[in-house]
Amino acid sequence: MHNKLLVIGLLLGTTLLSYGQDDKLDMTTIQKIREEGLQHSQVMETAFYLTDVNGPRLQGPGFIKAANWAKGKLAGWGLQNARLESWGDWGQGWAVEHSYLAMTAPYYKTIIAVPRAWSGSTNKLQAADILYISASDTTALESYRSRLKNKIILLDQSYKITPTFRSDANRYNDEQLQKMANESVTPQAGPDTTMRSRMLAMRTQNAFNQKMRKLAKQEGALGMLNTTQNSVDGTLFVSGDYANAALGATPDDLADLSIAVEDYLTLCRLMKAGIPVKLEIDVKTKFYKDDIKGYNVLAEIPGTDPKLKDEVVMLGAHLDSWHAATGATDNAAGSSVMMEAVRILNTIGAKPRRTIRIALWSGEEQGLHGSKNYVTKHFVDPATNKLNKEGENVAAYFNVDNGTGKIRGIYLQENLAAGPIFSQWLKPFADLGATTVTPKNTGGTDHLFFDRVGLPGFQFIQDPIEYSTRTHHTNMDTYDHLIPDDLKQAATVVAAFVYNAAMRDQKIPRKAPAANTAR
Amino acid sequence: MHNKLLVIGLLLGTTLLSYGQDDKLDMTTIQKIREEGLQHSQVMETAFYLTDVNGPRLQGPGFIKAANWAKGKLAGWGLQNARLESWGDWGQGWAVEHSYLAMTAPYYKTIIAVPRAWSGSTNKLQAADILYISASDTTALESYRSRLKNKIILLDQSYKITPTFRSDANRYNDEQLQKMANESVTPQAGPDTTMRSRMLAMRTQNAFNQKMRKLAKQEGALGMLNTTQNSVDGTLFVSGDYANAALGATPDDLADLSIAVEDYLTLCRLMKAGIPVKLEIDVKTKFYKDDIKGYNVLAEIPGTDPKLKDEVVMLGAHLDSWHAATGATDNAAGSSVMMEAVRILNTIGAKPRRTIRIALWSGEEQGLHGSKNYVTKHFVDPATNKLNKEGENVAAYFNVDNGTGKIRGIYLQENLAAGPIFSQWLKPFADLGATTVTPKNTGGTDHLFFDRVGLPGFQFIQDPIEYSTRTHHTNMDTYDHLIPDDLKQAATVVAAFVYNAAMRDQKIPRKAPAANTAR
Repeated sequence: MHNKLLVIGLLLGTTLLSYGQDDKLDMTTIQKIREEGLQHSQVMETAFYLTDVNGPRLQGPGFIKAANWAKGKLAGWGLQNARLESWGDWGQGWAVEHSYLAMTAPYYKTIIAVPRAWSGSTNKLQAADILYISASDTTALESYRSRLKNKIILLDQSYKITPTFRSDANRYNDEQLQKMANESVTPQAGPDTTMRSRMLAMRTQNAFNQKMRKLAKQEGALGMLNTTQNSVDGTLFVSGDYANAALGATPDDLADLSIAVEDYLTLCRLMKAGIPVKLEIDVKTKFYKDDIKGYNVLAEIPGTDPKLKDEVVMLGAHLDSWHAATGATDNAAGSSVMMEAVRILNTIGAKPRRTIRIALWSGEEQGLHGSKNYVTKHFVDPATNKLNKEGENVAAYFNVDNGTGKIRGIYLQENLAAGPIFSQWLKPFADLGATTVTPKNTGGTDHLFFDRVGLPGFQFIQDPIEYSTRTHHTNMDTYDHLIPDDLKQAATVVAAFVYNAAMRDQKIPRKAPAANTAR
Repeated sequence: MHNKLLVIGLLLGTTLLSYGQDDKLDMTTIQKIREEGLQHSQVMETAFYLTDVNGPRLQGPGFIKAANWAKGKLAGWGLQNARLESWGDWGQGWAVEHSYLAMTAPYYKTIIAVPRAWSGSTNKLQAADILYISASDTTALESYRSRLKNKIILLDQSYKITPTFRSDANRYNDEQLQKMANESVTPQAGPDTTMRSRMLAMRTQNAFNQKMRKLAKQEGALGMLNTTQNSVDGTLFVSGDYANAALGATPDDLADLSIAVEDYLTLCRLMKAGIPVKLEIDVKTKFYKDDIKGYNVLAEIPGTDPKLKDEVVMLGAHLDSWHAATGATDNAAGSSVMMEAVRILNTIGAKPRRTIRIALWSGEEQGLHGSKNYVTKHFVDPATNKLNKEGENVAAYFNVDNGTGKIRGIYLQENLAAGPIFSQWLKPFADLGATTVTPKNTGGTDHLFFDRVGLPGFQFIQDPIEYSTRTHHTNMDTYDHLIPDDLKQAATVVAAFVYNAAMRDQKIPRKAPAANTAR
């Protein structure tokens, strides 16, 4: 890396590069950012504490522990006003205290299993038979009523597992990046019916599962097994019935377990073949009601320009995670990158004109609650439903939440006016693979509510690595699935973007409110 | 598949194809074999019983149960003399009766763990601290003596996990197959020093582990954790200290567990960072001493030619497996294929001139014991160390033991004279992807001792699929990792090879004894 730095210094020749009328890049500072971010990174130490040391950061006590650690760390680095700020009531906290599932007949086999979030307990080791159910409508459900006592419920699944001839991990190639850069922003012809029908199917399935669980609990069933088509090779995709946290899940609810698809299908085949199967199960979960509030972590590097210091450049990532592992790529990665970005800026003694504010959100996994409530509470006038003064002062928001992959560019979220600015800002990072500005929207994370209220909120393009195959919401989302060099690069790029946004004369241009098409 | 059959029938026009002076292929029968093997296959039902229903087939009771089932199935299909035949004393049987491992501090996490074969027990749920050991020489080992009581031992490992940008599953492409076909059999310039140094390193490590376990047991340690570099994503590579079966392992030995590499490295990092870690462990294994013999399964389709029926064409696969899963690709696949091959031949009413004998070996995983002892006992005169009369009567031996991949050809094992014969035999299966004859040796399985005593023993080339990445000796070697179409193809090709070998005038040519270079 050091050689590349030298080369760039020589090529640039000067420390102020003018790309346009407004954006004179402070190359001296950018070089310091690169030096600190690439040569003296602490991003993996931060990630280690957020993952290995802290454990899962599920909304509730797991998150709170990490949030307090992050607050302390940010304050320790010298950021101002490091704080936890409540975004409102959430619901019960929850954690696993014991989890064990095995098949004991026709032979013994431990089953890879993780309780789904807000699952109930069996409270002790219990032997259980399986109730194998093929029905998926509630009429048929009633017919199982009398057979549920002490049973573990297994719904028929006909997944077909095939070996994968594609790699788990990937990086974007030049062609793919070029294609993203060339995308147009013409609105879709109509609503996304695929997504809509998928959501509908999911809702139907969830409604069935809810009814099933209610009936099963009444009738004294012990547990229920789940899996997904892609939960192969020991990698389990696990989330949870998060409506339950608010809807009053209790410890005496069914034990609700996600298991490996291979084990699931073995159980299905044995039941279909009439082979007697016995399970043993021991699940203990704990519900926390002492603090039902949700919190975000916030901290600042104060602005230094009297005219601009009330304006704020925000950077953020959600710090909460699902619980089957330690949420390394979703999203200790993004949280560590954002923390590292402000550490870099602080360490090199950056004096931003605008105030820089880091936000580590929570409740993201259950519906972007932290960022949504923060944006609504701080930036929107409830009377007019338009931006208030504080909202008008937001210069930009940058988000990272796509795993461990390095930054390859940025999504404009259809804010075309920002394109030339970001293209210029990316130029000093072309050697690190960050080159592409795409007009496209990207969704599913915390920039969305900034965008929705008319603030310029952006998410970076990251190499997908093994996000959808191995880590996103899985039991394998662990520290070892992080790529140190990629996180260092990401923190470096983000630090420069945030710094640039805090220094330029104008705020980042905004879309006209009507153009808010974030989904 | 049916269309292809028709096409071939039309192309061939005749039912007897003459490729050489000796080998008139009986295309009518080959067509029947294809029809039965591809259209009316039972290979997956067989595989289902050997895996899902039977469970692990580790040398001992797990194997015996499967062996008796296979014997009954072969007899039920109409094979003659279906029997279990002892190959001599083996040692204790062993199975897992309970297995649970979790981290309880700094937070709760179930750890994916499988006891290594012939591991001891903890017999109840025990809380335990970790003793983290960086030393790998026995001098340093002594210094840990007083600290072993109630500890679980974790040896320092510095594996670096990186995401894989290659697919888990692969098939051979034309170029690779051509390269194999063009291989020469010039002997290696010298001994394989890489292999030798790797074996040496493994022996040193094993010796250290043995000493460690002995010391740890004396001092009252509870268990020991292991992992491998490639035990990623929930796929654990697990075998066992099989010397122990003979060397008198006992239930009060250390619990000896293989765990996921991500969990292993998390524990290492936490210990290095001085974070207090607590585990809880509950392992119960059972040792079986009621029958310490090893057995092979054998059955025959009797020859019908008075002059040739004392000669025998053998086909075989090892039926035993490791225990972390159900040994689907290693080697229920090969066993099911071989059983299916004789089922096909029996079903179509084949009347082979020579006797066809199927062998399902055991003790393969611990050193090819079943096949080695069978060959030695049946085919070698102990006085002269040369083939006896029974050995002289072996026309050929065919083996399948490379996973679920379809057959792409055959290894000649440097028996060049067999090349033209097998090339002809493969021609009717070119449309199924089986085309390649390579002079190369392949090792590691049960054809080796046939080859070593001068008998023509062969193993087929199979597509590697995900054998080395996901299934071979792993906890993921399960039914769902089998590819039905590939197994059907393999059984069909094998049935034809066996039939051809049983029908041709001459036995398959043999190498001169001096040329036996099997490794």
